[in-house]
Amino acid sequence: MPNDDEAPTGAPRRITILGATGSVGRSTADVVRAHADRFVVEAVVGGRDAGALADLAVALGARFAAVADEAAGPALSEALAGTGIACGAGEAAVMEAATREADVVLAAISGAAGLAPTVAAMRPGVTIALANKECLVSAGVAFMAQARRLGVTLRAVDSEHNALEQALGAGRPEDVTALTLTASGGPFRTWERERLARATPKEALKHPTWSMGAKITIDSASLMNKGLELIEAHHLFSMPAERLEVLVHPQSIVHGLVHWRDGSITAGLAAPDMRIPIVNALSVDGARLDLDVARVDFAALGGFTFERADTERFRCLALAQAAMAQGGGAPTVLNAANEIAVAAFCAGRIGFFGIADTVEAALDAMSAARLPAPGSVADALTLDAETRARTREILQDRASRPIS
Amino acid sequence: MPNDDEAPTGAPRRITILGATGSVGRSTADVVRAHADRFVVEAVVGGRDAGALADLAVALGARFAAVADEAAGPALSEALAGTGIACGAGEAAVMEAATREADVVLAAISGAAGLAPTVAAMRPGVTIALANKECLVSAGVAFMAQARRLGVTLRAVDSEHNALEQALGAGRPEDVTALTLTASGGPFRTWERERLARATPKEALKHPTWSMGAKITIDSASLMNKGLELIEAHHLFSMPAERLEVLVHPQSIVHGLVHWRDGSITAGLAAPDMRIPIVNALSVDGARLDLDVARVDFAALGGFTFERADTERFRCLALAQAAMAQGGGAPTVLNAANEIAVAAFCAGRIGFFGIADTVEAALDAMSAARLPAPGSVADALTLDAETRARTREILQDRASRPIS
Repeated sequence: MPNDDEAPTGAPRRITILGATGSVGRSTADVVRAHADRFVVEAVVGGRDAGALADLAVALGARFAAVADEAAGPALSEALAGTGIACGAGEAAVMEAATREADVVLAAISGAAGLAPTVAAMRPGVTIALANKECLVSAGVAFMAQARRLGVTLRAVDSEHNALEQALGAGRPEDVTALTLTASGGPFRTWERERLARATPKEALKHPTWSMGAKITIDSASLMNKGLELIEAHHLFSMPAERLEVLVHPQSIVHGLVHWRDGSITAGLAAPDMRIPIVNALSVDGARLDLDVARVDFAALGGFTFERADTERFRCLALAQAAMAQGGGAPTVLNAANEIAVAAFCAGRIGFFGIADTVEAALDAMSAARLPAPGSVADALTLDAETRARTREILQDRASRPIS
Repeated sequence: MPNDDEAPTGAPRRITILGATGSVGRSTADVVRAHADRFVVEAVVGGRDAGALADLAVALGARFAAVADEAAGPALSEALAGTGIACGAGEAAVMEAATREADVVLAAISGAAGLAPTVAAMRPGVTIALANKECLVSAGVAFMAQARRLGVTLRAVDSEHNALEQALGAGRPEDVTALTLTASGGPFRTWERERLARATPKEALKHPTWSMGAKITIDSASLMNKGLELIEAHHLFSMPAERLEVLVHPQSIVHGLVHWRDGSITAGLAAPDMRIPIVNALSVDGARLDLDVARVDFAALGGFTFERADTERFRCLALAQAAMAQGGGAPTVLNAANEIAVAAFCAGRIGFFGIADTVEAALDAMSAARLPAPGSVADALTLDAETRARTREILQDRASRPIS
């Protein structure tokens, strides 16, 4: 009798990578190439770097490549000429890539831009390996309802959520009393208030353990990233806000902890290497794939440290926790306002504490606490756009005010 | 449709506690009393303390109580007079208790004395929650074969094995690349050779994290306990010797680590409280029971440390690892010789290093490396007895030799 557990030795899975030229996308490409017998690449989607996307499409033997930036279309066509790989540019091409037949779609387009293609990729039987935060943060209620309705399997690619997903395998959901997500604490973990007030984007971009994109690295420095991850976990694991906790763990080896009603704790650990959660998220029915990665040498590490997260210095975390507890439209507003605030911080227009101040002002201005949860992804995108506009106004007002 | 997962709300399980008056037995009694609606106590077995056993039998509402020491029989009868609880004394009574109808048997009689009653308790459909080491160390091959043949469910009560059992739920056995058992390192972890050579039984009994019986506490000081646990894990999880590792972790919060082929690690953690693995081992189909225990406060702990185990200062661990790798009769000899050596150490007849020296001499004298694995529990007990006799001779020879 054939054994379902042996699926990985079966037919290769058709995979589409949304956000193939980003950090997660490139790690995914590494994993897929290392398991060339297990995967057939259907489509790859990139933002604007036509050259990098074309190289990746060729290396992976993809059938279709789409670049989001319309202007990069001609360069992509030229680079793929004679390869037999079809391509396109602009929103329609991205949507075509997302909706092509596939067994698994790695959703790693960052920001609100990832929402529509990820939702478009949903169909019965497909697995979405989710690396985009906005799907769950901005449109969590609608996104999860859609996934359930269509019978989509969601797998977490974030290291914390992937670790929790694995650890949850040790028991039944109804026996979980709490979930802990760890945070490295970022580059500013030990900085005092006075120094933090003068922190520069360059300093914020020096992440101690993870190598990631700029936006998420700034979010890690402000702990907003952990707040957004709490909201993701809230939806992904149907876990009430009051049972979701953050623990600062600078070594980034322990990623998540599941606390059970019988006093046992199951933890998910791994070296800080994104290929590990990615290869795990691509496993089927718990049948893991090999990954050529150095074993964590606990004795050589010597130890781990743990600290409480300081929500006084890192107010973004407190704002995110409050938005999660409020629910409704608050997480959507929080996320959109944060994107604008981080851009303003990177442009030198506001200081580090200005990020939290701006997000808080936007939550107030939008009356976020009273907004209902967006009932659809389209509604979430509308609220997202409205919040961005309102946040820009707030920043403009602030810039034009004389320094008091 | 009734859901199998909801078993704990169903009929109470009939439980028998072998070794009820010991440390694990008493913790089990606490757990059973806290879940009085879930358990009916069939029988309790104690060693020689008739008064304590009678109190426990009454408190638990047991139907039968057996005391191993024949001489304690009259006291037990007297103490239970008028309670309606049947009782008996001596080997036959212990065996009667072990073979009475039960859904789960907590096997916590320590030492070789636990072997026969635990094997007697095996029958189709029964769950053996195993806290006795000898079943797996002295008679591992025969014990596991018998359990498989009869369709017995084995659950691990040792904190390390229980943690691993839970963590293994996060994947498939064939995807495990290694298992790590942690060790507190015991009271002598930081002692230098010179000081260790003069270590007294009293010093060895000061365990830093666990409160346990004397024999196991001395074994923890010599790291023989961890060696015996490796051999247990070897049988319990069908894991080759070379994939079983020890990591010193003085805080005793992380109990076991499962390393997967995809680079992920799943860890089992808990406060050092035996009630936690016990209540877990008493769960059915992964449906956990509540336990009123303080949450581990990671931030308050501040951190964990990890060290390599030093097999130069703690040669017992190296001897156990070698015996595990050799297999055959070596683990049986190792275990029996160690019991005699520990008793000699406690009696002040040999020093701390004398434990390893004696075990090594016994392994040599019995040609343990060439002995086949005992084919039955009876064979294991015979080899155990032969080894004890030979080890006593070795100790006598040594004592009569002039100091060179």
